[in-house]
Amino acid sequence: MKVKEGAGVLIVSPDEKTYLVKVFSGKSMGTHLGEINLGDAIGLEYGERIYSNLKHAFLVLEPTLEDRMMKLKRRTQIIYPKDAGLILLKCGVMTGMRVVECGSGSGALTMALANAVAPSGKVYTYDRREEFCENARRNIENAGYSDYVEFKHREAQAGFDEEEVDVAILDLPSPWDGIPAAAKALRGGGRIASLSPTYNQVERCVERLGQEGFVLIETIEVLIRSIRVARGKTRPVDRMVGHTGFLTFGTKALPESPSD
Amino acid sequence: MKVKEGAGVLIVSPDEKTYLVKVFSGKSMGTHLGEINLGDAIGLEYGERIYSNLKHAFLVLEPTLEDRMMKLKRRTQIIYPKDAGLILLKCGVMTGMRVVECGSGSGALTMALANAVAPSGKVYTYDRREEFCENARRNIENAGYSDYVEFKHREAQAGFDEEEVDVAILDLPSPWDGIPAAAKALRGGGRIASLSPTYNQVERCVERLGQEGFVLIETIEVLIRSIRVARGKTRPVDRMVGHTGFLTFGTKALPESPSD
Amino acid sequence: MKVKEGAGVLIVSPDEKTYLVKVFSGKSMGTHLGEINLGDAIGLEYGERIYSNLKHAFLVLEPTLEDRMMKLKRRTQIIYPKDAGLILLKCGVMTGMRVVECGSGSGALTMALANAVAPSGKVYTYDRREEFCENARRNIENAGYSDYVEFKHREAQAGFDEEEVDVAILDLPSPWDGIPAAAKALRGGGRIASLSPTYNQVERCVERLGQEGFVLIETIEVLIRSIRVARGKTRPVDRMVGHTGFLTFGTKALPESPSD
Amino acid sequence: MKVKEGAGVLIVSPDEKTYLVKVFSGKSMGTHLGEINLGDAIGLEYGERIYSNLKHAFLVLEPTLEDRMMKLKRRTQIIYPKDAGLILLKCGVMTGMRVVECGSGSGALTMALANAVAPSGKVYTYDRREEFCENARRNIENAGYSDYVEFKHREAQAGFDEEEVDVAILDLPSPWDGIPAAAKALRGGGRIASLSPTYNQVERCVERLGQEGFVLIETIEVLIRSIRVARGKTRPVDRMVGHTGFLTFGTKALPESPSD
Repeated sequence: MKVKEGAGVLIVSPDEKTYLVKVFSGKSMGTHLGEINLGDAIGLEYGERIYSNLKHAFLVLEPTLEDRMMKLKRRTQIIYPKDAGLILLKCGVMTGMRVVECGSGSGALTMALANAVAPSGKVYTYDRREEFCENARRNIENAGYSDYVEFKHREAQAGFDEEEVDVAILDLPSPWDGIPAAAKALRGGGRIASLSPTYNQVERCVERLGQEGFVLIETIEVLIRSIRVARGKTRPVDRMVGHTGFLTFGTKALPESPSD
Repeated sequence: MKVKEGAGVLIVSPDEKTYLVKVFSGKSMGTHLGEINLGDAIGLEYGERIYSNLKHAFLVLEPTLEDRMMKLKRRTQIIYPKDAGLILLKCGVMTGMRVVECGSGSGALTMALANAVAPSGKVYTYDRREEFCENARRNIENAGYSDYVEFKHREAQAGFDEEEVDVAILDLPSPWDGIPAAAKALRGGGRIASLSPTYNQVERCVERLGQEGFVLIETIEVLIRSIRVARGKTRPVDRMVGHTGFLTFGTKALPESPSD
Repeated sequence: MKVKEGAGVLIVSPDEKTYLVKVFSGKSMGTHLGEINLGDAIGLEYGERIYSNLKHAFLVLEPTLEDRMMKLKRRTQIIYPKDAGLILLKCGVMTGMRVVECGSGSGALTMALANAVAPSGKVYTYDRREEFCENARRNIENAGYSDYVEFKHREAQAGFDEEEVDVAILDLPSPWDGIPAAAKALRGGGRIASLSPTYNQVERCVERLGQEGFVLIETIEVLIRSIRVARGKTRPVDRMVGHTGFLTFGTKALPESPSD
Repeated sequence: MKVKEGAGVLIVSPDEKTYLVKVFSGKSMGTHLGEINLGDAIGLEYGERIYSNLKHAFLVLEPTLEDRMMKLKRRTQIIYPKDAGLILLKCGVMTGMRVVECGSGSGALTMALANAVAPSGKVYTYDRREEFCENARRNIENAGYSDYVEFKHREAQAGFDEEEVDVAILDLPSPWDGIPAAAKALRGGGRIASLSPTYNQVERCVERLGQEGFVLIETIEVLIRSIRVARGKTRPVDRMVGHTGFLTFGTKALPESPSD
């Protein structure tokens, strides 16, 4: 695969600092190891190198979903890959699905959802804060996922336009406020995931899920531990992220029909 | 979405025991809450209920990827969703990609990979143990992912048939043995992930990745903690899985050309 | 050190099963590796062996505090060494101190406190359930710590008899109910520790500590991970204890005098 | 308890910054909330307050063992209270015991051991680096534990002077080098603990313990998670210490006598 004019690439310095940039002829970038001409990357294979004016080699890579999520322009605490990965798996998000997300935040999870439903599915993402919508929209556009995402500037209590969606994701300060709307939008057997940093939010969220008839409700947290690997000196890393948030999952059961 | 004859469904009892079964007219299943006629599910919406002869309601759900992974027929330690989810994110696996996996094991990760590359991508999965190939193949078939998976009975050292693949996954007792073949199969900038339970494996794996010119090498482990949520009694669960394996990631840099 | 008649010893089988027993001449014990005559241990050095009728060697050891805590007769969830150790350190419990504990539970933490204040200090331990008092008292007696412990059958709200104690420990379902009494019993600068399994308890406990004028309030949890060590196969153990309880600490500030 | 001239006290500012200082008449200390005259503390009860020239109240507390450990002058990575507490419990360190420690490091663990064996026991602490000995000695003196500690400037391989000690603690880059000397110094049934940051050290240490006839060998690590508690906003703290070291424990079995 060759790098094209305008492509988003991950530039990696010899000491493994990474930069997510778009390459254009004539565009240059300063680094701690000299200036690099980003236009030099055009036409290269991913995995090849460009050189700074100080003769240091910088790798040109295709960014992964993780790179894009971690390096987007943040206006909020973002969803981490460790959490996003498990949400995708546990909700069974896959190509062709229709997903409602509320709120959009900085678009990190939106991106992961879009990546999973592409090319035939769609993510409908709501946020009540206009400037967040705009920032998320730009992030999604930059990452090339615009075809799979529709942005809506609205709060959860006002309800969602979609019906019979496969998955609903809530990333709200008061997730319980969004649960009735999510329940209404979901198809029978559809899955819901809610992210919250505090125990108190989780408690109210789980209670409300039960009231709205969700089943298979469970709450977990995901911890990541990095290992510093070196021959004869392998050990866990000194510092780690201690908490991002709790993930609560549920499945929509349809109401029992009166004739039952 | 309606349940069709032959569909794989997740049956959920009133006390939330789950059963992954295929529904056929006339097929019944015994449970601790009476016998249920699986044929009753045909034509229902997912999220509706069937009833046992003892009048208990059982929900009929579409299984998620997680349900399928956790309930497949195991001949090996399977890859857990917590690990699979992060592998997908960090390797950026997405629709249309070509992925090499070695070994297939019970097919749990194969399934997650197939789910992510569908409908236009492909997973090539190798295993040197014929009975494992066969079991994994049946599991993939049952889950409906056969179109996206090709099985090969061969060991890693013999090399892979594919070239320019986007991602290579190694789940081997001696991952270092598979790294040269993976390096050869990967395109420039392609990602590799290796899973190993011990520190010793990780140490040798990381060393070999460096020798083969991989960059952005990192090793992590993922821990999941379940929370028991109940109003006024919310707390982490007493027992947890303490370890499944370490995940090592890397990215393929192309060799510097002689003229550099 | 030689084993005396009536001593509590830890017997260790060749496959490292452990038994905490008292040795008496003529007393025997059945094991999966044959019958052993406990009287054989009398007069041995700790670290020597006695032999079963099937010729297996069993080590005779002096039990540590941990052995005694983990093997006492339980009527309640006991405090684990991981938690007890940190309580001792953070409260600065040491020889000569006077400590109030409420409730006694099975006496595991009582034992650790007694061990730390011996020989000149004292633990005053309260429990409102008479049968728990009795069980804890027997456990403490068996472990040889009776000289350093005074048992009282009373509930926390009724107040403690002691004044100017150095440390107060609360292990109560409603720790907030015991905080005023603990505040009254503590000397200026005295330390308090409370153990609770749920977040909800912690939240109310911390709030009450603040109301009663405690400072340096902090809440933590301690997790223990076991490592299975074997040459070339070293890894964390598969299963672990995911939660025992949260520990909340505080320090008593004296009220500002009116003239301040 | 009243504060005496020359006492080590913990001064706590209104916003809970802490300072470990000695109080002397006429000695003052600058803080972000004004200057305080430390002599004002003399004659106060612990838990009372002194006031800065800006009228802010500072609490005067007796430092706990934890305060002293965390605030000593460091020349090395110190042992954390979480690890020290468990070492004391698992080795059963108590008043009157004789303990060998190698190396002394900054004296943090030495202090915890001294605190536990006081008033009738003794800690013999070895270090091969003279400047470390000196620093640790000053730290122990400052903390008031000199009566219970003997410092020796020597490396582990040269052996220890003591015999029949109850507990041996190794905090060495190559713990296996100290194991034979520790085995020689320990009484039958004596306990050993070794601290190491890497898996590789643990592996060699455990192997050597087995060769020297130790039993009940186990390796663990202790993780501490802080909880930020506030009504309606309770959650684990974002950042945590991910690793300090692994703790390996063992018990000395005496060699089987030839007549056995």
